[in-house]
This record gives sequence, structure tokens and C-alpha cells, in this order.
Amino acid sequence: MTGLAAEVESDVPGGAPARVSTPQPGDARLGRLSLNQRTTARWSLREALDGARAAGLPAVGLWREPVAEVGLGRAARWVRESGLRVSSLCRGGFFTASDGAGRAAAVAANRAAIDEAAELGARTLVLVPGGLPPGDRDLAAARARVAEAVATLVPYARERGVVLGIEPMNPVYAADRGVVSTLAQALELAAPHAPDEVGVVVDTFHLWWEPGVHALLESSGERIVSYQVCDWVTPLPADTLLARGMMGDGHVDFASFTTAVARSGYSGDVEVEIFNADVWAAPGDRVLATMARRYVELVEPYL
Amino acid sequence: MTGLAAEVESDVPGGAPARVSTPQPGDARLGRLSLNQRTTARWSLREALDGARAAGLPAVGLWREPVAEVGLGRAARWVRESGLRVSSLCRGGFFTASDGAGRAAAVAANRAAIDEAAELGARTLVLVPGGLPPGDRDLAAARARVAEAVATLVPYARERGVVLGIEPMNPVYAADRGVVSTLAQALELAAPHAPDEVGVVVDTFHLWWEPGVHALLESSGERIVSYQVCDWVTPLPADTLLARGMMGDGHVDFASFTTAVARSGYSGDVEVEIFNADVWAAPGDRVLATMARRYVELVEPYL
Repeated sequence: MTGLAAEVESDVPGGAPARVSTPQPGDARLGRLSLNQRTTARWSLREALDGARAAGLPAVGLWREPVAEVGLGRAARWVRESGLRVSSLCRGGFFTASDGAGRAAAVAANRAAIDEAAELGARTLVLVPGGLPPGDRDLAAARARVAEAVATLVPYARERGVVLGIEPMNPVYAADRGVVSTLAQALELAAPHAPDEVGVVVDTFHLWWEPGVHALLESSGERIVSYQVCDWVTPLPADTLLARGMMGDGHVDFASFTTAVARSGYSGDVEVEIFNADVWAAPGDRVLATMARRYVELVEPYL
Repeated sequence: MTGLAAEVESDVPGGAPARVSTPQPGDARLGRLSLNQRTTARWSLREALDGARAAGLPAVGLWREPVAEVGLGRAARWVRESGLRVSSLCRGGFFTASDGAGRAAAVAANRAAIDEAAELGARTLVLVPGGLPPGDRDLAAARARVAEAVATLVPYARERGVVLGIEPMNPVYAADRGVVSTLAQALELAAPHAPDEVGVVVDTFHLWWEPGVHALLESSGERIVSYQVCDWVTPLPADTLLARGMMGDGHVDFASFTTAVARSGYSGDVEVEIFNADVWAAPGDRVLATMARRYVELVEPYL
């Protein structure tokens, strides 16, 4: 933590005074809080690991690109030395190419991602399904290709001890990013496989609106392999990819959603993953302080 | 139709050459095509009625605001004189206020809308559910209030021969415009009532992504009381309210969706409803020519 206390104790990106005091390292309430690297997108891997440790977080969610920047071997060593858990690796997937070459390339890329997850000690590889190929309007076929690709990857992932986590994505991304649109659909895709092979990544931003989602979460049992939190804010920013908000800044009811996740039996880490230009513009330590405060206020009491 | 033929025979808003020739008045393929007024938002009611007739369309979907501009009595007379069917009136709804006064006001406003629909000869009143009240995050409760409000309005609408059409809306609007997010959910809301009392408004923009939507449409029978078409385009414009595209400009597969609607037994009009700044900037007659061409190319063959 750097800067004056007065600076740290206002929330980013909104600037409002903090509503609760910042939990300090050693606070038991931080025991499951994980920093997804994309929340502090300007930070390198080194800065993210150091920042998470300084804030007293026990875990990080890593992304392949910043890992590649420093090299996998060095990244894995840094992670081991940090003592931090790797709650997930983002991301594999993008399975929807309709041509054979595109599909083969996706399988190869995903095998590499599985290898990286194993090397980094990440139990879960997050799979973003991918959107419709250019000019292709057959959504059902694209979804079927996701199922095929997952089945192809399962033996490889199982051998390496990596769980494949299918991430259903808000329908706003159905065309261009993720053709799997609901938790119900992701659970159907996971069902043919064992829970320690294929699970679902539950993200409040993607699923908060789904009718019946609380009951579905409660009955999801071991299928939930990652819980990611951030808020749905309106109006949406011009770039919908950056439409995520700090917990509490939008419309998501974290109490009821988190309660449902907890009732499923999920006992893993809770990643804060926020794609937001204003969050990215703020100093990383202030982002971590704000997210820790919002987490202990809005999420952790319901776990 | 005004302007040079060369101008009319390129598509708006994209400007590409027309792929098919423009169907002319009397063409049997236009027998179910309806101009929703919002597609030519700059046109007054008078211009919309005249424009639809000039293009050979048999129907219009009206909006309350432009009707109010000229007065209900006069609007109803113009509609009768035009010989056009009124495929729907947009819109009632906005049922989600959490306070008693807000709910009473919504019921009163919807009774007025029902009266207007009856006077205009519109069989269906389109109901936009409404979003979350400011600061309210209880989506389940907001959805329950929609069900209550619909039940309250049914006797009034039945007496006046107006069907209430619940419009499920793309989840991108769940927070601020429509808490009913799927066709499945809208059908559940309609189920307690008779099909000639409460139905569903099916809009490709809102529902194209829904898993299993084709099978659900096919089994929806008499519940479909309006079919609206437009496309889902990417990237989304900054204002998500204006994110609709001309059929064929985006990702929706109108063939499979329309086939499913037809298999339900739906035999009503097909409204083209496009909120899009570029479409609005184009001359109305060129918008109608483009939409008629796209309709006979992409939609009508599957009805």
C-alpha cells in the first residue's frame, strides 16, 4: 500500500469514501479472495504477485499473455516462491472455428494452455467458448463444436490434473465471444464428463440475470470450479468488453448470488475480475484496497 | 417511392447494392409485412401510414407517442381510412416500480394503453416489462411484480378485446429496461392466463441467442401474438438501445428462427422494428425498400 491513507480510503473508480475499513493482511476474511490479473491490467505478473501479497490476498487468477511475457518457467517459479495459490488460468477455449484447420489449431492451443495450467499449479483452466465464425449464423452448430472440442481435450487435461472450466457468457457476447450463454447450458455441456474433468466457471457479470440461476447454482455441486465476481453497470460503456464494474457499483445482488454459490458446496477461491477502463486507470494498490473492502462488505459474509 | 431508381436499389444503411429486386405493391410476398413505426422514427404517423401504403405493405406497428401527437381519435380515423392493419401497439408495461404509488400509476397507464389499442384496432399491446428500480437489486421480486401487474390488467384487456403481449428482452437490458429475459420465462408468465388474454412478443434481436429457442418457439402455439424481426449486429453501438440492425446485416439466422415461428402455427404479421441511428438517418422510403427486399429474401420464404 502506498500513498496517503486518505487516498487509499476512497473507492476506485468512483471516488466515494470507503464504506468499511480496508481489511489488512492476516484478516481471516481475505482467506478466499483472489486477484484476477485482468483487474489490474497494467500490472505485470511480477507486480500482480507482489501486489496481491502486499494486500494480504492468498491467491491470484493468472492470464496466459502476461505469463508468456516473462516465460512460463520463470512465472511458475515466481508463483511458487510467492506462496500464492493460482485460482485459475485464463484462458483456453475459442472452439468455434468451422473449418478443420481452425479446429485443429484450437485443440493445439488448448493443449498448450493445459500444460501451462499444470506448470503454474492452476487447478482450473477457464474456457471462453468463442463466438460465431465470420459470416456463420449457425449458433447450434457452433455450440455443438464446443462440446466436441471439450470432449477431445478431456483425456489430455485429466492426465495433467487440470479441470476444464466452461464459462457461460452474457448473451451480449453470444455472437462474437461466447456462444455458451447460460449456466444451464454450461452444465449440460459439462454433464457427459466427470466433475473433476469438466466444470463451470460462474461469473456474476455473465449470469446475474439468468432466470432460476440461484436454484441452479445450489444444485450445481462439484461442477462449480471457479467463482468470479464483478458488477453489471449501466449504462454499458461503448466497448461492451469493458462493461464490468466494481462490486457494489451496479445491479448485481451479491448476497443472494453468493449464498447460492455457497449452498452448492463451493469452497474455492473467489476471483475479482473486472474489465473496466476506469479501474485500469487507477493505481493498482488502490484497486486492491477497494476490491478487498467491497468483497468483505458484499461477498464474503455470504460464503 | 421517390428518388432515382439507382438510389432506391442500394441498401440502407450499408449502401451495398440490393441483392434482390424490390417487391412492388401487390406482391403476395408482402402480405404479412408490417412497418413498426420505430423503424422510420423520423416519420410522423401520417408519413408512416402513407409510406407503408406506398410500399405496398398491409400493416403497421404503431407507437403511442406519435399517435398522441395527432390525437387518438384522428389517428384511429387515419388508420381506418388507410386500410392498414395495426399489427401491434407499442407499448405498455414498465411494471417494476416497488412502491405502491408507482405500481398504481403503471396499472393506470397500461389501462390507457389498452384503451388506445382497442380504439386503434390493434389486437396486441406490447408490454415491455421494465427494469430494476433505482438501487434495487432484487430481480426475482421485480419479475414477480410483472406477473402481478399482468394479472391485474387481464380482465380490463379482455373486455376490450386486446391481447397483452409480454416481450422478453435481451439480457443486455435486464437491469434497465426489461427484467423478463427469455422466451421460456415469458411463456411461464403467460401460462396462468388464456392464450387470447396473454401471449408473448417474439423479437429476433432479443431471443436469437436463447438455448433451445427453436424448439420452444415450435411448441408455443397460440402464445405468439407478435413476431418482430431485426438483426443483432457487432460491435454493439455505444447506445445499446440503438443496437438493432437491418435483417442480414448481423448474426441472426432468420431462416431457422422464422421456420420455428411458422411451425408454432403463427399466422400473423411480421413487424420490422429497427432502432438504429444510421437507419433513422436514411430516407424513409429507402428504409422501406431495403426492409422489403431483406424480408422477401431472408424471412418470408420460411413463413
